[in-house]
Amino acid sequence: MTKMKRIGVFTSGGDAPGMNAAIRAVVRAGIFYKKEIIGIYRGYEGMIEGDFVPMEVRSVSNILQRGGTMLKSARSKEFLTKEGRTKAFEQLKKMKIDGLIGIGGDGSFAGMHHLYLEHKMPYVCIPGTIDNDIPGTDFTIGYDTATNTAVNAIDKIRDTALSHNRLFFIEVMGRDSGYIAINSGIAGGAVAIIIPEEETSIEELIEKLDASGSQNKTSSLVIVAEGGKSGSAMEIAKKVQERFSYFDTKVTILGHLQRGGTPTYFDRVLASKMGVAAIEGLEAGQTDVMVGIVHKEVIFNKFDEIMSQPKDIHKDDLRIAKILSI
Amino acid sequence: MTKMKRIGVFTSGGDAPGMNAAIRAVVRAGIFYKKEIIGIYRGYEGMIEGDFVPMEVRSVSNILQRGGTMLKSARSKEFLTKEGRTKAFEQLKKMKIDGLIGIGGDGSFAGMHHLYLEHKMPYVCIPGTIDNDIPGTDFTIGYDTATNTAVNAIDKIRDTALSHNRLFFIEVMGRDSGYIAINSGIAGGAVAIIIPEEETSIEELIEKLDASGSQNKTSSLVIVAEGGKSGSAMEIAKKVQERFSYFDTKVTILGHLQRGGTPTYFDRVLASKMGVAAIEGLEAGQTDVMVGIVHKEVIFNKFDEIMSQPKDIHKDDLRIAKILSI
Amino acid sequence: MTKMKRIGVFTSGGDAPGMNAAIRAVVRAGIFYKKEIIGIYRGYEGMIEGDFVPMEVRSVSNILQRGGTMLKSARSKEFLTKEGRTKAFEQLKKMKIDGLIGIGGDGSFAGMHHLYLEHKMPYVCIPGTIDNDIPGTDFTIGYDTATNTAVNAIDKIRDTALSHNRLFFIEVMGRDSGYIAINSGIAGGAVAIIIPEEETSIEELIEKLDASGSQNKTSSLVIVAEGGKSGSAMEIAKKVQERFSYFDTKVTILGHLQRGGTPTYFDRVLASKMGVAAIEGLEAGQTDVMVGIVHKEVIFNKFDEIMSQPKDIHKDDLRIAKILSI
Amino acid sequence: MTKMKRIGVFTSGGDAPGMNAAIRAVVRAGIFYKKEIIGIYRGYEGMIEGDFVPMEVRSVSNILQRGGTMLKSARSKEFLTKEGRTKAFEQLKKMKIDGLIGIGGDGSFAGMHHLYLEHKMPYVCIPGTIDNDIPGTDFTIGYDTATNTAVNAIDKIRDTALSHNRLFFIEVMGRDSGYIAINSGIAGGAVAIIIPEEETSIEELIEKLDASGSQNKTSSLVIVAEGGKSGSAMEIAKKVQERFSYFDTKVTILGHLQRGGTPTYFDRVLASKMGVAAIEGLEAGQTDVMVGIVHKEVIFNKFDEIMSQPKDIHKDDLRIAKILSI
Repeated sequence: MTKMKRIGVFTSGGDAPGMNAAIRAVVRAGIFYKKEIIGIYRGYEGMIEGDFVPMEVRSVSNILQRGGTMLKSARSKEFLTKEGRTKAFEQLKKMKIDGLIGIGGDGSFAGMHHLYLEHKMPYVCIPGTIDNDIPGTDFTIGYDTATNTAVNAIDKIRDTALSHNRLFFIEVMGRDSGYIAINSGIAGGAVAIIIPEEETSIEELIEKLDASGSQNKTSSLVIVAEGGKSGSAMEIAKKVQERFSYFDTKVTILGHLQRGGTPTYFDRVLASKMGVAAIEGLEAGQTDVMVGIVHKEVIFNKFDEIMSQPKDIHKDDLRIAKILSI
Repeated sequence: MTKMKRIGVFTSGGDAPGMNAAIRAVVRAGIFYKKEIIGIYRGYEGMIEGDFVPMEVRSVSNILQRGGTMLKSARSKEFLTKEGRTKAFEQLKKMKIDGLIGIGGDGSFAGMHHLYLEHKMPYVCIPGTIDNDIPGTDFTIGYDTATNTAVNAIDKIRDTALSHNRLFFIEVMGRDSGYIAINSGIAGGAVAIIIPEEETSIEELIEKLDASGSQNKTSSLVIVAEGGKSGSAMEIAKKVQERFSYFDTKVTILGHLQRGGTPTYFDRVLASKMGVAAIEGLEAGQTDVMVGIVHKEVIFNKFDEIMSQPKDIHKDDLRIAKILSI
Repeated sequence: MTKMKRIGVFTSGGDAPGMNAAIRAVVRAGIFYKKEIIGIYRGYEGMIEGDFVPMEVRSVSNILQRGGTMLKSARSKEFLTKEGRTKAFEQLKKMKIDGLIGIGGDGSFAGMHHLYLEHKMPYVCIPGTIDNDIPGTDFTIGYDTATNTAVNAIDKIRDTALSHNRLFFIEVMGRDSGYIAINSGIAGGAVAIIIPEEETSIEELIEKLDASGSQNKTSSLVIVAEGGKSGSAMEIAKKVQERFSYFDTKVTILGHLQRGGTPTYFDRVLASKMGVAAIEGLEAGQTDVMVGIVHKEVIFNKFDEIMSQPKDIHKDDLRIAKILSI
Repeated sequence: MTKMKRIGVFTSGGDAPGMNAAIRAVVRAGIFYKKEIIGIYRGYEGMIEGDFVPMEVRSVSNILQRGGTMLKSARSKEFLTKEGRTKAFEQLKKMKIDGLIGIGGDGSFAGMHHLYLEHKMPYVCIPGTIDNDIPGTDFTIGYDTATNTAVNAIDKIRDTALSHNRLFFIEVMGRDSGYIAINSGIAGGAVAIIIPEEETSIEELIEKLDASGSQNKTSSLVIVAEGGKSGSAMEIAKKVQERFSYFDTKVTILGHLQRGGTPTYFDRVLASKMGVAAIEGLEAGQTDVMVGIVHKEVIFNKFDEIMSQPKDIHKDDLRIAKILSI
């Protein structure tokens, strides 16, 4: 097996806290194993344009604790075409990059998979997304931080909810995945949690709120994952307010502040381990895979395996949330 | 002058971080000066209903660091009527309360002023509102914390803005007052700040953004105070996006999370000093006044004086913000 | 199997963030399953004295997000004696408590085990300690928060280290366990990490520092777990300073601030799940066990099983820390 | 008056959060007023060595929110000699720097004063130190952040103190100045505060603790400023423990973590305003001065004026702390 000499690293899709820690680990572990590491700016867009920079230990100094991604990210329409991917491959070849490490969500993973199928470019994907919606790893980079950010915001809103007689609907991120909603809901003491994986009827919700109202609660928080079938926080709040007058109803949409911020220790350590493992994986001949950490062990799963795994539906977590919201 | 024996304390209007520190200071200073302190729940609503509780040192233990208000707050329509105020006064008389300390914004102050005019109930108002829009004091309780909360959120959003090529519009609180917007804007490195006190045309804003775009900035933040004449963050963003395509435009509305949270040292110390001063002021015969701290000195201003003072229009701060946003 | 009617809950040993979330979950899940829940104040000390209080849903309102333990904790010498434990059992019997849930570390667990052996008092232990040094669960309550607190402090100290040419030794908690040290060290970008499980010679450390010094690092952080064989941070720093002059050496001991603070989402969810599981475990006849969560699954392990399991020695984590500290 | 063309900026002495915001403001305001700005690394040490770098708008991008100082700081023995200062001046002349802006404490200010006396080098000093111990300005850069850091640590320690029956002595920074101690003590609800400006006898302290103990307080915090005449926190705690057994006494020394961290909005705005004012001051002919902000107004005071002003002795603040600690 010919060993790689020059490895490209990039971030793609939505940014997530801890991506910088992963870049740092890739660069440092790469140098430790005598590789040259090339940074690719702005994801697939920069790959197509050949926006490359050689990276040294100093390039990644003092970034471990920073949110966002120093290599920047972008969504590239051109890369979705075969022509775009061929351009990107030509750039990589010109730069003599013989392996890729990409940090991002499932869209980014699919991009690398196509580059591999069409051009035999070896790669390891590192799962970086706040949504935690990728099988093959217990946690994705950024999820721990984002959930803490959501919980900190919920704590602040609870202060206000308790000071007035108020019902707050708080919308958190997670278009297809209820992870942030369920865990910030349990941690925030929500009376109800609405996730994309399960439809919640307004009837049920009102029943739940009535039950807790009758116990003389003076405030309540409902957590809503964005983009679920049950409607947005704004829509649900409006329907509830119409039939439920003894609370004053308010809505807060946490939005993009969940993406940023200093990563937690957990996301930094997860990213550091995955960065080292990605380098060691490429070196050991792994390709067309995502690195994951499952119950403390590093594993590599093929693209096709991961895409065919069912997603978590949070049954037991919802059960616990209900017990705790009496 | 007959000295007071029993003083009522309450919070009213929107809650603000530091209100609990003010309540604690009123209770402890009251007991220090041998007064009985009665807590009034839910502002003027609880006053009308006679929702009172005697307060001891232990009643206020471990609340110094908590957001919100342990006495709860409410907006009372009934108190806006003369009949409502008479009811409230009867309750106070029945409870033998001979002085009031109310913590809140200008609406709360006006309520106490009317109670004083109609029933000679002596009072001192403590200014507690995150908006910092009350003359007669350099700072109101809650403003320092709220501005830090806004800046922390802006810092997180900047991580994402820098990772993509994005223009973010961030809406902060301050319906009639630009304090939070200007100071979080300067502290957050905003390219433009839109405040209620000054109209900003879309033309100017686009010119400003064009200028910074031409300097190759890869991201920009615009801070918008809610409810200004120039429109909401959402409306302004929409108009800008139409004519300005090289940035991807996003909006985040910080909303109620700005009200809550652990108060900063500044708000706790401010609240503690104002609480002690309110007790000492009542004892010294002050009435129909608001306590303020102006350049480190405690002062008392009559209701009429404060209401006739012009508000700050932030001219020099806006000038500095412009110099720094080149 | 006779079902329990009345369950006592207490916290014992050093406090840990998330203990309140566990108490809340025990109380709410207990009430959900129609049990009466009795709070026992000040651990075994309060048990011996009969310092009990019945707990309702309202008793645990608004405690989810608070550090420390509302039931207070203490270390009891009397309970270490057979007589003390008999007194405690008599108090429990008088109060008609027929099951116990104790939240604490291995000392607390051993206490319950003895009460079980001597008096057949059924119990489930919930592991709550920042040290994460108990087998039978992936994580103990409080560890995630404490590690984040350590990392936040390290981030602040790094600002100063980078601004001057300084070598900082930072002492973190973990008398017998390197978890906090290793994970805060990786997350904080430490150049070296000294843990109790492994002896580090001053020679090795100086070699490591020399190597990184020769790469022109302008600052370095060394993380030291308290109480290891290699000496305290203060002792190690002194030895290093003597032989190593181009850095100015400073020491910071994080100490008790690592115990407190608002728990992270992770500790709140972990504590909530363990609290529910403890109630459900007792109901299902589990006794003389600790509840643990191992790879997302609730498990129960007998006292003897847990005490005979080897502890983690962090081999692979140390390897990764070394790769990343080049 | 000849206008300046090239202005040097540097940081000196202990670092303080907000120094980066001040550097950014100096650079941006300088460029706004068509000056060239030269960064001087490592304070007077770098000045002597000619360690200079031209600064652009991009040089200061994304530093507003960072602790520490990007220009680094150092303490230079050589600059304390006339020869050292002559060397420094030669370097400045060679670089065609015709004005200086230095950010630091009173030692840094004295350095610039000597350079001015001996070589007529015009300068404006910006007060940057967490101790807030410089007359001529209401606040120095870094003080607000450091006090909040201290209070956050106190909040965490209080969790633990309340969970056990403990008396904590917490040592905060402020070798000659009680600002951090008094304000973090009031904000943290300390039972006693020991500052360098006033001697506190152990007798008084024990009396105070006895009084609060007799009111059944279950925990207490004492704040001690480092380096006061009354002894270190460790020494005081030892003396108290000897005579006072019903509390378990613990000590925490906050140390260097008070220097770092993301600056608060207040320190960023203060630093931004002072940076702009320093440039505008130099341009207007100010020299041998420190810029200050006194009750919202920018002022310039000569070195001699500032050094002859008495320092604050916190009389009224101590009085309030005593009232609140009943």
